[in-house]
Amino acid sequence: MSSRLNVAVIGAGYWGPNLARNFRASSEWNLAAICDLDLERARRVGDSVGGVPITASLDEVLHDPMVDAVAIATPARTHHPIVLAALDAGKHVIVEKPLADTRERGVEMVERARENGLVLMADHTYCYTPAVLKIRELIEEGALGDILFVDSVRINLGLIQPDVDVFWDLAPHDLSIMDFILPGGLDVTSVSAHGSDPLSTGKACIGYLAMPLTSGGIAHVHVNWLSPTKIRQMVIGGTKRTLVWDDLNPQQRVSVYDRGVDLALQSKETADTRAANISYRLGDTWAPALPEREALANVASEFAAAIREERPARTSGESGLRVLSVLEAASASLGAYGAPSSVASYIKEVQEA
Amino acid sequence: MSSRLNVAVIGAGYWGPNLARNFRASSEWNLAAICDLDLERARRVGDSVGGVPITASLDEVLHDPMVDAVAIATPARTHHPIVLAALDAGKHVIVEKPLADTRERGVEMVERARENGLVLMADHTYCYTPAVLKIRELIEEGALGDILFVDSVRINLGLIQPDVDVFWDLAPHDLSIMDFILPGGLDVTSVSAHGSDPLSTGKACIGYLAMPLTSGGIAHVHVNWLSPTKIRQMVIGGTKRTLVWDDLNPQQRVSVYDRGVDLALQSKETADTRAANISYRLGDTWAPALPEREALANVASEFAAAIREERPARTSGESGLRVLSVLEAASASLGAYGAPSSVASYIKEVQEA
Amino acid sequence: MSSRLNVAVIGAGYWGPNLARNFRASSEWNLAAICDLDLERARRVGDSVGGVPITASLDEVLHDPMVDAVAIATPARTHHPIVLAALDAGKHVIVEKPLADTRERGVEMVERARENGLVLMADHTYCYTPAVLKIRELIEEGALGDILFVDSVRINLGLIQPDVDVFWDLAPHDLSIMDFILPGGLDVTSVSAHGSDPLSTGKACIGYLAMPLTSGGIAHVHVNWLSPTKIRQMVIGGTKRTLVWDDLNPQQRVSVYDRGVDLALQSKETADTRAANISYRLGDTWAPALPEREALANVASEFAAAIREERPARTSGESGLRVLSVLEAASASLGAYGAPSSVASYIKEVQEA
Amino acid sequence: MSSRLNVAVIGAGYWGPNLARNFRASSEWNLAAICDLDLERARRVGDSVGGVPITASLDEVLHDPMVDAVAIATPARTHHPIVLAALDAGKHVIVEKPLADTRERGVEMVERARENGLVLMADHTYCYTPAVLKIRELIEEGALGDILFVDSVRINLGLIQPDVDVFWDLAPHDLSIMDFILPGGLDVTSVSAHGSDPLSTGKACIGYLAMPLTSGGIAHVHVNWLSPTKIRQMVIGGTKRTLVWDDLNPQQRVSVYDRGVDLALQSKETADTRAANISYRLGDTWAPALPEREALANVASEFAAAIREERPARTSGESGLRVLSVLEAASASLGAYGAPSSVASYIKEVQEA
Repeated sequence: MSSRLNVAVIGAGYWGPNLARNFRASSEWNLAAICDLDLERARRVGDSVGGVPITASLDEVLHDPMVDAVAIATPARTHHPIVLAALDAGKHVIVEKPLADTRERGVEMVERARENGLVLMADHTYCYTPAVLKIRELIEEGALGDILFVDSVRINLGLIQPDVDVFWDLAPHDLSIMDFILPGGLDVTSVSAHGSDPLSTGKACIGYLAMPLTSGGIAHVHVNWLSPTKIRQMVIGGTKRTLVWDDLNPQQRVSVYDRGVDLALQSKETADTRAANISYRLGDTWAPALPEREALANVASEFAAAIREERPARTSGESGLRVLSVLEAASASLGAYGAPSSVASYIKEVQEA
Repeated sequence: MSSRLNVAVIGAGYWGPNLARNFRASSEWNLAAICDLDLERARRVGDSVGGVPITASLDEVLHDPMVDAVAIATPARTHHPIVLAALDAGKHVIVEKPLADTRERGVEMVERARENGLVLMADHTYCYTPAVLKIRELIEEGALGDILFVDSVRINLGLIQPDVDVFWDLAPHDLSIMDFILPGGLDVTSVSAHGSDPLSTGKACIGYLAMPLTSGGIAHVHVNWLSPTKIRQMVIGGTKRTLVWDDLNPQQRVSVYDRGVDLALQSKETADTRAANISYRLGDTWAPALPEREALANVASEFAAAIREERPARTSGESGLRVLSVLEAASASLGAYGAPSSVASYIKEVQEA
Repeated sequence: MSSRLNVAVIGAGYWGPNLARNFRASSEWNLAAICDLDLERARRVGDSVGGVPITASLDEVLHDPMVDAVAIATPARTHHPIVLAALDAGKHVIVEKPLADTRERGVEMVERARENGLVLMADHTYCYTPAVLKIRELIEEGALGDILFVDSVRINLGLIQPDVDVFWDLAPHDLSIMDFILPGGLDVTSVSAHGSDPLSTGKACIGYLAMPLTSGGIAHVHVNWLSPTKIRQMVIGGTKRTLVWDDLNPQQRVSVYDRGVDLALQSKETADTRAANISYRLGDTWAPALPEREALANVASEFAAAIREERPARTSGESGLRVLSVLEAASASLGAYGAPSSVASYIKEVQEA
Repeated sequence: MSSRLNVAVIGAGYWGPNLARNFRASSEWNLAAICDLDLERARRVGDSVGGVPITASLDEVLHDPMVDAVAIATPARTHHPIVLAALDAGKHVIVEKPLADTRERGVEMVERARENGLVLMADHTYCYTPAVLKIRELIEEGALGDILFVDSVRINLGLIQPDVDVFWDLAPHDLSIMDFILPGGLDVTSVSAHGSDPLSTGKACIGYLAMPLTSGGIAHVHVNWLSPTKIRQMVIGGTKRTLVWDDLNPQQRVSVYDRGVDLALQSKETADTRAANISYRLGDTWAPALPEREALANVASEFAAAIREERPARTSGESGLRVLSVLEAASASLGAYGAPSSVASYIKEVQEA
């Protein structure tokens, strides 16, 4: 299979043009069509990438035997019917985050893709930035040792969304990145969510997620629409080294610190001897050079590779489902005044399947 | 009462020398004695401030009729007996944080001081830094409007303490500052604590506290001994402006942002009209000049003023008790896997008394 | 004159597409044509802005009576003939920096524009960024007082240019900005240039310009192609306040410091009394909010306004000439081992004309 | 010679107490006396370090056979007579920067020390900070390759000195550091100085020094008393790597960038082929961990080691003389409107001696 794959972009709103531009620029893809109910909007996108066919009919796209795959950038509540229709029409699918608007619908989508033997990829774009790819690589090769904690802050004076709270708006980024970089994925069994809506907008504008990691340690996310300053920072502590990703520092986005606490554990010890065996490392800092490549170009390549190699994408439907599961549990915790809420166990079933 | 007050410093360990130096330099105090069981240690401190009398006997200090007040810088577990003895001897007391090692003991100390008509001051040193004094002043005069949220981060590669976890070691700073700057003090009825001890040191090294404010909004604290980088930052969001205190940026510690979200609230509205009435302010930033004065010099002045004016200190025993109450509730929440835990209601009783 | 003006963009290389896009988006302009000897390149630019006519013939453009103005983005050595031809054809002209490749040619261009009563505008794009517009406004209204010094640093691991040294590549930015914001323009009578070519590339890769300001004080520029880190910072000291423009800090690009030195000057004084009369201000810092608008959109508006109002553009040909004059003097100083070199006096003649 | 050396500190003003404290804490020194004409001042310093003998008589100190060395922290204009007297009395000498108030006097001091076989050390304290020691080590081991440029910025709202201009006040730091870290010392044959006194204080408050390095490349210094913000940064470019020292960033003071420009030089080339052979490295960044030790403690150790090993100190009188020579040439250049001024050739004679 050496020729280009054909893809249609469904949805010409905010994100669609970016998908269109990157599929258009890719040497692995032929951008076959732009589909939007608003034909004028489709036309603008089609023109901007140099004259791609447009249509207002999803059916037309799905029944076109030339189309190998669809990229869906429509509102979250429409993902479920469109993705199922595409999978039933034999198309591979990449879909915007979040995978669906409920976990249950996400499960159905993931199972349908498996049954039909098709790729269902979550467009977790951030995972394909040079910084996150490097972080995954470093963790994979053991540069950080075992992971002790992950702390993510994503705050900004952000647009208050009409339909979702700050957790569903921003946390999918943090959760999908954690799922991507952690050795066992985002493996958590419960989540505590603390939110606040101090302006009475009708939804949480400030949110915190605390998640004990099954492997030990803790993951935490702080999202906030009301911060005057912009922070996008993730600290990943390991037994060997600790990494700080500061996405807003283009001159040094990723720093790896050879600093930390060492415990000389012994067979028999008490609290006192334990304290005596603690030592502190204050070693060098290292900031790897990062290639400059647009994340969506990497997304397009990965989608093509998954299809050709008949394997799940690195950000598979299952990863999208894990994110959904945490978000649903977070909403439940929020309703229970922050009491820990179980994350649905399908995560494991899917992993083991 | 225009002459100098006499003070003895009890405890010549880590913090005692700082207290001694500042009382010595103050025009309102006469440093009468340094008291420590380890007489050699007392001597070193006494010498360093120019030859102050030393003693190993607490009794001697407490029975000296010339001594008006004592400053206690001994380990937390000894605060209760020493403070009670001092109060019973008719001495005004300033005591290191935390006020006591249990809330119950703190209550006894606060009540004893009240019964005896003496000043019991908590040495919440941070509250007397030029930055925090300015923040309190700005909030008091309404520059931020109503407070929507307070988010505090205090992380560092810190010394793992032998006897306390990261909450009891670091969070007293954040909690006492919040108690100092918030219009109604740290008025919270429950706290959720999430901690982690990924290195199996026997106590939490990473901690998060979420506290809904009674006035609306939320307070949150992140403390961490395992971070390779040092962050000491507090964001205080208000309806009018938002303030960021970055304690590690000497060139601009306090920034006030005229940025935020405005809601044009109306008598009748639905979720849809509400969204339509949101607007965003993107105004100027302003960083007030801060005077340069050592916080402990301000502490010494405030202690003297409270005694002379026969009023509670700005960081009174009650404020130390509010901090203790939150810490105890946090420990309870920690034991309950992060479920919200009630903060003991004595806070209010004391406030109303 | 309420209808749109017609403009043709000459040169479809690096900068041409940006000009085309902004004229296309402007409500004051009609983008009439893209002209480039390389017709394919012209076509790509024409397509990207939605189908604008293209041509390889400059003559055709200049003889088209519908064309009111041309925007020239060709190599510097071609500016002189193209601009003169355009002016002789009665077209208003905006031209890339530098105005010309020699000062003498620049003078001819400026004079021709004046003789023909046409607008000749230098595309000093930086001057139209929100930050620089705000700085000019602040200086104009006296917020800084009298200007004491201007220090500009523009360093980066930059592309070593085949035809020009680092002075001619980067310093036009700094010089044109200084000319724009200083009350009397860039009014200097001599310049000392210090350069270095430590890699033997055949031209200076590191450069410093020192220029005593006629009004008192000094202006200085540091440009460098070999710095591993990127700095774009200008400090503008005034008798009342000092301003720092950090172009790479999107969260606080412009800061105004109420800090400085005050001299209480008296009629009779000696060196000793003078010292006694120095005091230091350590006041607040203020960072004005900046609107978000692309600089080239402002450039397009200003070009249209200058034409309609029959006045020189804010970055006129004369300002381009002042920049050229300093660059030529800098090259002379460089050849004289850094000895100060006179800046040609035409600056004043033009100003007074 | 295993016993402690005896040192007397001459001058108990601003710097003397620091010297006293560090000699007192050193295991290699015995602090024998504090000498100051103002006996009360001497007493305060003597007391603060635990009761050291004091005297107002320099003669007494110099004739005390127990005293091996003197540390001179008196005003610059007094260095010449005191140092000569001390050397003539057979004492080793460490002296504050600048070595003397004229180069000629400095030469006499250096020669006298050589004639008498005594150590004359310049107290260039900055050179003994962990950061500068690491930089010297990195350059020495070739980590940066050949040095291409050194750019130093030291600006701050500084105290305007009554007796010296900003060059003589601040630049000795930059010049002594350059002399310390550069492989051949500060080897320059001319300097151009540009200064400005825009407030008419009677001396330059803003200064720039440009110095072509004999080995190729350029050194540059920017000193400024009128900057509202504080910058202390040095960039050292090399053929292999470039180092940035940001003294005000305690979390990452020294960064080594594997970024730069490579030229594939060939035997025959023209300007055109040369451009074609340029490539750019964009490698990793590395920040070495630095030990925490007070610079003056290192100074005390080095002074003792030089005496015991009968060798010049790492910051010898000659290095102080090289700094003086540049400062004198800078003053001459300043008087010649920035024309390059020769740096006196004694530098070489002394080096070769």
